[in-house]
Amino acid sequence: MSLDGFVTGPDPREGQPLGEGGERLHEWMFSERATPGGPPEHGQAAGANGEVARELFATTGAVLMGRRMFDLGVGPWGDTPFPAPCFVLTHQPHEDLVMAGGTFTFITTGLTTALDRAKAAAGGKNVLAHSPGIAQQLLRAGLLDEIQLHLVPVLLGTGRRLFDHAVQAGRELEPTGVIEAPGVTHLRYRLPR
Amino acid sequence: MSLDGFVTGPDPREGQPLGEGGERLHEWMFSERATPGGPPEHGQAAGANGEVARELFATTGAVLMGRRMFDLGVGPWGDTPFPAPCFVLTHQPHEDLVMAGGTFTFITTGLTTALDRAKAAAGGKNVLAHSPGIAQQLLRAGLLDEIQLHLVPVLLGTGRRLFDHAVQAGRELEPTGVIEAPGVTHLRYRLPR
Repeated sequence: MSLDGFVTGPDPREGQPLGEGGERLHEWMFSERATPGGPPEHGQAAGANGEVARELFATTGAVLMGRRMFDLGVGPWGDTPFPAPCFVLTHQPHEDLVMAGGTFTFITTGLTTALDRAKAAAGGKNVLAHSPGIAQQLLRAGLLDEIQLHLVPVLLGTGRRLFDHAVQAGRELEPTGVIEAPGVTHLRYRLPR
Repeated sequence: MSLDGFVTGPDPREGQPLGEGGERLHEWMFSERATPGGPPEHGQAAGANGEVARELFATTGAVLMGRRMFDLGVGPWGDTPFPAPCFVLTHQPHEDLVMAGGTFTFITTGLTTALDRAKAAAGGKNVLAHSPGIAQQLLRAGLLDEIQLHLVPVLLGTGRRLFDHAVQAGRELEPTGVIEAPGVTHLRYRLPR
């Protein structure tokens, strides 16, 4: 998330799935700047960012996403975004799509069904809500256990907000960890039931 | 700021200047919960929160605010919010108002004049932008040097956002410090000119 609350920049579309400037938000996962303002070094992130990314991948047993993210993402990804089965919440039926990292399954019967299917497939690992819309729905329904926030020191000004639409005013979260890393602050919160 | 980006709850008005639930965001300054979820202990904050609050008071040489914050705030405060001269940006002229902590001066000639007056009065200390609207104007005008963000693990859902209106897309900030403290994460950013 950008410091001003966005998880994409404006105008997400094919070839620019995270919107204008939105790639900046994921940079910590793939590379680190050797010097502030310097060019990014491509490849697997080192140090604290690498640890956070590797843990994220290792603990994710299934992924939930919206149809829009699938449509924009699967081209650039060329695979599942995590090495795990992915469940796409959609209104249009679609055949299963088998990729190297896992299978995309399309669920037309609502959020709860999609979550149940993802939980069953996750084998005790986490179900990751990969679309902000899905995360917001789970939050409103009281079905979210944890928020892992990767706060990037950039302002985007417009785009898709992670927290949008009136959600449970006064809901308290329990901070469970802060990691300062190059170009990002990793914050974790538990949502008590 | 709440985790979802709000610096007040909904419906700020007399008797509830921070909106519904908004007082929660300033709790860290005045008290700490002895146990998570337990009752707040009133009085001067101890530990890391006390240090942050004391530094904020010690380094603030003047305050900029909007007329709305003055109208809602001065009653509950009974004084200036910081022991420093306060400059209120407004369209309506108003006589100076001398309080124990400093003088409220009302500026009708725009942001730049108000900032210049505040800088001159600050005696080399910081000018604190106390209203989100003022902070946003300064940010858009490239006149903000630093952001001190006190991120509180609560969702408010609605209210006044700290970051609102399209501001300088792609503007990079330089993180200069993170302090984890009970009930709040203190984050600091420098805005390179």
